Amino acid sequence: MLAETKFAAEPLARPALGEPYLLTPGPLTTAYSVKQAMLRDWGSWDGDFRAMTSDLRRRLLALTGDANDEFDCVPMQGSGSFCVEAMLGSFVPRDGKVLVLANGAYGLRAAQTMQYLGRAYTLIDKGDYLPPRGDEVAAALDADPAITHVIAIHCETSSGILNPVAEIAEAVHAKGRKLLVDSMSAFGAVALDVNEIRYEAMVSSANKCIEGVPGFGFIIARKSELEAAKGRSHSLSLDVHAQWAHMNKTGQWRYTPPTHVVAAFLEALRQHEAEGGVAGRGARYTRNRDVMVAGMRELGFETLLKDRWLSPIIVTFFNPAHANFAFDRFYELMKDKGFIIYPGKLTVVDSFRVGCIGQMDEHVMRRVVEAAAQSLKEMGVDTAAPPAAAIAERAKLAA
Amino acid sequence: MLAETKFAAEPLARPALGEPYLLTPGPLTTAYSVKQAMLRDWGSWDGDFRAMTSDLRRRLLALTGDANDEFDCVPMQGSGSFCVEAMLGSFVPRDGKVLVLANGAYGLRAAQTMQYLGRAYTLIDKGDYLPPRGDEVAAALDADPAITHVIAIHCETSSGILNPVAEIAEAVHAKGRKLLVDSMSAFGAVALDVNEIRYEAMVSSANKCIEGVPGFGFIIARKSELEAAKGRSHSLSLDVHAQWAHMNKTGQWRYTPPTHVVAAFLEALRQHEAEGGVAGRGARYTRNRDVMVAGMRELGFETLLKDRWLSPIIVTFFNPAHANFAFDRFYELMKDKGFIIYPGKLTVVDSFRVGCIGQMDEHVMRRVVEAAAQSLKEMGVDTAAPPAAAIAERAKLAA
Repeated sequence: MLAETKFAAEPLARPALGEPYLLTPGPLTTAYSVKQAMLRDWGSWDGDFRAMTSDLRRRLLALTGDANDEFDCVPMQGSGSFCVEAMLGSFVPRDGKVLVLANGAYGLRAAQTMQYLGRAYTLIDKGDYLPPRGDEVAAALDADPAITHVIAIHCETSSGILNPVAEIAEAVHAKGRKLLVDSMSAFGAVALDVNEIRYEAMVSSANKCIEGVPGFGFIIARKSELEAAKGRSHSLSLDVHAQWAHMNKTGQWRYTPPTHVVAAFLEALRQHEAEGGVAGRGARYTRNRDVMVAGMRELGFETLLKDRWLSPIIVTFFNPAHANFAFDRFYELMKDKGFIIYPGKLTVVDSFRVGCIGQMDEHVMRRVVEAAAQSLKEMGVDTAAPPAAAIAERAKLAA
Repeated sequence: MLAETKFAAEPLARPALGEPYLLTPGPLTTAYSVKQAMLRDWGSWDGDFRAMTSDLRRRLLALTGDANDEFDCVPMQGSGSFCVEAMLGSFVPRDGKVLVLANGAYGLRAAQTMQYLGRAYTLIDKGDYLPPRGDEVAAALDADPAITHVIAIHCETSSGILNPVAEIAEAVHAKGRKLLVDSMSAFGAVALDVNEIRYEAMVSSANKCIEGVPGFGFIIARKSELEAAKGRSHSLSLDVHAQWAHMNKTGQWRYTPPTHVVAAFLEALRQHEAEGGVAGRGARYTRNRDVMVAGMRELGFETLLKDRWLSPIIVTFFNPAHANFAFDRFYELMKDKGFIIYPGKLTVVDSFRVGCIGQMDEHVMRRVVEAAAQSLKEMGVDTAAPPAAAIAERAKLAA
């Protein structure tokens, strides 16, 4: 019975027998072939590995639609947060000032990073899930001429909201400022085309929508910004200009790269291309979300966000009001059935999250809903309806 | 013929067919079982992975001989250089001053890191390979009371020298200062026992003598130093105190860990233990070095260092003076035979390096020597004797 729930329909690769699906915002369930690519060792100095690095940069750059060779891609060791810090420390001059747009943990982390950097910033904090809008960004930029850069979170996985990056980009560009985008959990499944959306730099990481394994991230930035970044970084390791210049000169990473993770990522990029690139990947995740949300709603679960703001990445649900519901028990029951879900990150109401990304399709998502129904039954919860307070909270969200 | 050269005698695991041995200072040739440990996905929030992190920390700490529970282990995402920067930024107060002991690229990188940090330092630069000695450290500390910390490189892989950390530690302790050790390429094969050598913190990484794959490093430090590190770091990502406090509180890494690399490392730690820990691992590497160096000397190659300073990690050889010898060609010929060697990093004379670490034993090292003999023959080099200038250079090395 458990084995039956493990396998997605072809052409998705199967996770190993007995391994739970990760319904999380990454690390996520990756294809078996992606992991198999790690079954050998590479010398980081050797030409074979330099060719892999070059291929990786070229393929990532192609996902941005950069037809005029204006951008370049700089992979960077560490987690995604390392790359956000590298981007802020390298592209914001020491006398610059950043407007941080926050509506969750990742926006606040960008602000915290600015504190460490000791460079000026100001914060628009929309709380747990309200989207920062173009008009308020424009107003903030008018009000403070010292602001040189804006950082926006593309998909804020705290709530799962897909922030309106296009209208934010328009406002920033209209006011003559520069936009940096944290597209960690969205890039590869949600378009961030340089011909459609004006930005100077963005970051994402290996273990999100490209479906690699964790170990590095990457910065994609205008070459003019990369040139200008020289000498700005607060950190040797996180100096994007130095990494870029060294990589272009030698074909190598400055310091030891995560060779196996890079090999896995190349296989993931090949699969991403075979699935139809950003559009194909985004379509599968959107279908995952739609099937999963519809099923969960039938069980009585309610989403935090109205449909307009739901990302195809991860969805937040209110905890049911029922006295028998306890998240820790629900987590373990779901894990027993082969699905690892994610705790909520809201400050006001109790919630949990279900991810839609990774090697899963709608067949898997139907089984997730079945597992949730069964888990509720085992807990003695006859309806997953959220508490009235959560409903009221949700009503506050601007449509 | 090629396949024959690929396989070590049992009990060493075999690299995949057709895969060259990496005679480099890491990334290195790892056991197949280490790579196989990466064939599944983990949720970084899940209890299973938290248990893995806890096991990893405990096992690493045990290698230092810390019987009194005075130290703790903090894994950190990124390459080894990220960990060196994290150590310097977290343990050196903003008004501290560091004496950097350099005799190669890694010592100079520590100095460069201090420049980025904007904290005071002074440098003893011994050039390409001369060891920094205890008495000169003592004199430098006497001469400058502002110095609070000393950083030493345990094995400087630029030359392959094993620096005299014990006498340096004695001098630093006698003068009431604090020692930080970059034991990147030595830890796990060369003893760094806290009961024998006084230090406050050290760093190493996953892909060196423990024989894991690259993707993270670790800091082992006195708990009193970890406590004192609060608020010092210049970097959010590289804040050792914050990583430590979060890990102790939640069992999780602060930001996404390289889950697969961690799984591989745990398997590598189990194999390290099975081989007899630091002593067993060090004995195999020492035998690798002795067999390889003896064989290469028979071919006419000469080592940069006298025997006393040769590490069991990596050995530098002078390029032969013969007109037909060219390193690039030698590299390719060796690679064709299944062995990836490493270019030299000396500033004065031409050289190359051969590593002794990774899943290789003396049988493999004999084949390395055979491959070198064959490569010389193919290049039309009848003797690998180094140029007279190199001999003269070598003579300068204090015994």
